[in-house]
Amino acid sequence: MKLHELITASLTGQATLVIKNANVVNVFTNEIIKADVALAEDTIIGVGEGYSAPVEIDAEGAYLCPGFIDAHVHIESSMVIPDSFARVIMPFGTTTIIADPHEIANVAGTAGIRAIYKLSDDLPLRVMFMMPSCVPATPFEHSGATLIAEDMAQFLRKSRMLGLGEVMDCGSAINCSKDMLDKLRLFDGKPIDGHAPLLSGRALNAYRIAGPSTDHECSNFDEVLEKLRTGMKILIRIGSAANNMDEIFREIVARKLPTDNMMFCTDDKHIENIQQEGHINCIARLAVKCGMDPIEAVKMASYNAARAYGLRNIGAIAPGYKGDMVLFKDLKDFEVKQVFTRFGKPYEDKPTPMPIIPPAVFNSVHLPPLSKESFALHAKEVMPVISLIEGQLVNTRKDLPVLRDENGLFISGNGLNKLAVVERHHATGNIGLGILDGFGIKNGAIASTVGHDSHNLVIAGDNDDDMLIAAEALESCGGGFCVVSRGIVLARLPLPIGGIMTDAPVEDVLELQRALLDAAKYIGISASNDPLVTLSFLALPVIPSIRLTDRGLFDSINFQFIE
Amino acid sequence: MKLHELITASLTGQATLVIKNANVVNVFTNEIIKADVALAEDTIIGVGEGYSAPVEIDAEGAYLCPGFIDAHVHIESSMVIPDSFARVIMPFGTTTIIADPHEIANVAGTAGIRAIYKLSDDLPLRVMFMMPSCVPATPFEHSGATLIAEDMAQFLRKSRMLGLGEVMDCGSAINCSKDMLDKLRLFDGKPIDGHAPLLSGRALNAYRIAGPSTDHECSNFDEVLEKLRTGMKILIRIGSAANNMDEIFREIVARKLPTDNMMFCTDDKHIENIQQEGHINCIARLAVKCGMDPIEAVKMASYNAARAYGLRNIGAIAPGYKGDMVLFKDLKDFEVKQVFTRFGKPYEDKPTPMPIIPPAVFNSVHLPPLSKESFALHAKEVMPVISLIEGQLVNTRKDLPVLRDENGLFISGNGLNKLAVVERHHATGNIGLGILDGFGIKNGAIASTVGHDSHNLVIAGDNDDDMLIAAEALESCGGGFCVVSRGIVLARLPLPIGGIMTDAPVEDVLELQRALLDAAKYIGISASNDPLVTLSFLALPVIPSIRLTDRGLFDSINFQFIE
Repeated sequence: MKLHELITASLTGQATLVIKNANVVNVFTNEIIKADVALAEDTIIGVGEGYSAPVEIDAEGAYLCPGFIDAHVHIESSMVIPDSFARVIMPFGTTTIIADPHEIANVAGTAGIRAIYKLSDDLPLRVMFMMPSCVPATPFEHSGATLIAEDMAQFLRKSRMLGLGEVMDCGSAINCSKDMLDKLRLFDGKPIDGHAPLLSGRALNAYRIAGPSTDHECSNFDEVLEKLRTGMKILIRIGSAANNMDEIFREIVARKLPTDNMMFCTDDKHIENIQQEGHINCIARLAVKCGMDPIEAVKMASYNAARAYGLRNIGAIAPGYKGDMVLFKDLKDFEVKQVFTRFGKPYEDKPTPMPIIPPAVFNSVHLPPLSKESFALHAKEVMPVISLIEGQLVNTRKDLPVLRDENGLFISGNGLNKLAVVERHHATGNIGLGILDGFGIKNGAIASTVGHDSHNLVIAGDNDDDMLIAAEALESCGGGFCVVSRGIVLARLPLPIGGIMTDAPVEDVLELQRALLDAAKYIGISASNDPLVTLSFLALPVIPSIRLTDRGLFDSINFQFIE
Repeated sequence: MKLHELITASLTGQATLVIKNANVVNVFTNEIIKADVALAEDTIIGVGEGYSAPVEIDAEGAYLCPGFIDAHVHIESSMVIPDSFARVIMPFGTTTIIADPHEIANVAGTAGIRAIYKLSDDLPLRVMFMMPSCVPATPFEHSGATLIAEDMAQFLRKSRMLGLGEVMDCGSAINCSKDMLDKLRLFDGKPIDGHAPLLSGRALNAYRIAGPSTDHECSNFDEVLEKLRTGMKILIRIGSAANNMDEIFREIVARKLPTDNMMFCTDDKHIENIQQEGHINCIARLAVKCGMDPIEAVKMASYNAARAYGLRNIGAIAPGYKGDMVLFKDLKDFEVKQVFTRFGKPYEDKPTPMPIIPPAVFNSVHLPPLSKESFALHAKEVMPVISLIEGQLVNTRKDLPVLRDENGLFISGNGLNKLAVVERHHATGNIGLGILDGFGIKNGAIASTVGHDSHNLVIAGDNDDDMLIAAEALESCGGGFCVVSRGIVLARLPLPIGGIMTDAPVEDVLELQRALLDAAKYIGISASNDPLVTLSFLALPVIPSIRLTDRGLFDSINFQFIE
């Protein structure tokens, strides 16, 4: 509808759809107002009494909120294409996501970004983007592509590209690397996402001045408070892996901190977890459970994010705002009664007919010639070990005595496994090797081409034979996950799009994923951490404390290689 | 300082100025934190302990706040040039103004806007602008210039032009006049100020959808609440003329309304009033007196306005923000201890050396040939009368019996005077005549070329002789104010810049203004309303209820001429 038609429709009350008898949450006044909401096509034209329309929906007193917003998410981490992802999250009331396509960018560069932008164009889900800022994530690894400021300029005028994505490479920002400052300057005045776990004091000040104005990595309240004081917007994240938010919510409530610079995100949350727990609505539920005022929780889940990212026409139910809304049965459990899409229409679950996937994102796995010997790891008596922490992405470095064969090569045992990261984009032959504590694999291997953020091939195992077979099994299907035991591929999830996504139906993906988890359990991996998530983050050098890239073992607190 | 220098300075703590021992108001956390604030040139690089610098200032425990922001003001209404205006308001802690130069635009069009933009370029006061949207204010009057969307496009890229100024012509917006929608579309996505006194219901919805997203005209709490619910940002205004804010503040506090979409403005406040009461700090003082939390009041006076107008680097004391700050002795009376300018330097009162005023804004008064007969008003027994309300800009229409001579011409008496509005830009000969209740002039006339917003010549008097002399007295000095009695000019304030401003020193302006007020009192004008302000608003057809333009008597509720 054109502007003059909308103005006239609102003046005369000519609606195309009216939601009757709703308890409407007003994010501007913190009121819940019993009213009808009138829409003309995709736009709200009035909130009040006396509207009628060809289509009328009875809300039966349910709570009408602005559609929820995931302020920071990587669609690729769902392993399905945007259309399928939308159908997973929309039933939970999320109507907008702010996506950082840095996974596909690490594999396929600007062609990858264009592909996912195109695949999310016509969905009922509003998909906005942030430009991946760190491809590769750090100079300490090799990815499939490198993005410099010059590559990014072409995206500046795209209407759904809101700003610069998470600046994970804090060191480059603080130390004024020319490449990084070029990117920051290019996006000056637009939203710039930060990613600065545990960054503090003057380093945090310098990071803020460099440009990033949000953070989604806080793992305790003091970190929230310090970052908030600097003017950073805090994205409270509950994804699949990291989860320590109860204390943070309780402290925010206890100290009566203003929440207008806080919002919610999932970052990486697996489909199975979403289906079980919900999406952004499950973060709102936790907030309320921890004492947060329900209207404040709704604002954190919608309005605050819209405002932070400059989305002027969503995040509120008021004249001129778009019809993205969600009806909740209550503001405690946030169980969804009905969702209204960005088209101002009731959400219905149906797939987009046959999305065309750009060919550039297929055929991404290119391995060097591998043999058992490729995984031989010369070890000293005591070795630095990557030690997992239950329920956290953050890990710790331990220095432990290890078993060795007669040639001084590392042998799995005493709960320690071998970890390998193989550069898989350009067959360079780069292989990083390390030791992993906490997986407990016996007689097998698990492998993945999903390996944040460079998406190299990550393999953990207790023997080189199975590790080699796992590598070959993934090369042959264009990437994905697999579990191998005693020479046999027990389970495999092919991810032919960039080695990280598939256009297969969500149900098929979940079934194969369950098979993978069963197989992982069979080879002894403890079920307390999701082994697929854990594996795929072991190569990410921006999360503390110790990681393995294709270039070797990395100290991700001091940002240097180990030995 | 360049970005990399700032980043490095903040990382190493290399400050050029440190404010020690301040109680720093943090607008993000609503905390008051005892700390030092370190600046590198004009930018804050750290808030905390352990900073030293070549210049150190001891705050002695005073309260350091972000510099206050006047969110909506017409510099021209001060009658002095920007440099002088800055020196009046900065001692009260206002460091930024968002100015709508629509007064000079009504006189001199785009040349007038360029002139005031240039005159405010290098001041210690941060002067931002909104593009005047209604020049003339309505189609119901003649001004010196007409601005259409095409004229405005040249200003879009100017860094200090933030958006579209107050859309006073609500009717054109709601009724989709092409001219108005062209302007609104041109500024789509930028801040658009509204001006919609008493607009309500579906008309308000339509106005919101058309674009305006702020309002500074609310005169009661219900109006605040209704507009706030639609997502409008509320500018609480305390200027010279309108003043009804105590009730509004008390209700906001009582109902615990969120204040993040509220801010402060003066709109039009005479220098004398500023010097007596203060500027934005006096609104904060009233808010706190009415029960507002002091930190919320500080945010309304600074951060909220910065955020509403997209000023990303002011409104907070945090790394990366500019050094515009103010030290208050307490957060109750808001008495200023020290001000820090946008250059991050302590404010010192000194004039800009010899500002060069563009010639285009001189010589703006062009009257038609006038005689006593120009003011002859044929009257019926009962006439519609403009009746003033004490302490308000809003007036009421009364229909009163009037005195007439033998020719049926109106004669002053029974407290009624004559009012004339003479088109004065292009000598067209247009003269509007009406009757005024509440001024009580005896044996004299008062005249002004400041006549919002078209700035025609407004004359009130009880006899045509003195009205004619008043007109001539202003023509001969390029415009201004004057008071005449029995053929003698008792007092005159020349305003040679557009007939509305002068580059004379503030002290001289005030002295002449006092002389004018004395003279006004001498001819019987009650002192309860400022007669200069009252007079200059009598021709503004966007303020209820009844006004006089050069085209005649106007019903400014139903937007139509009377008779």
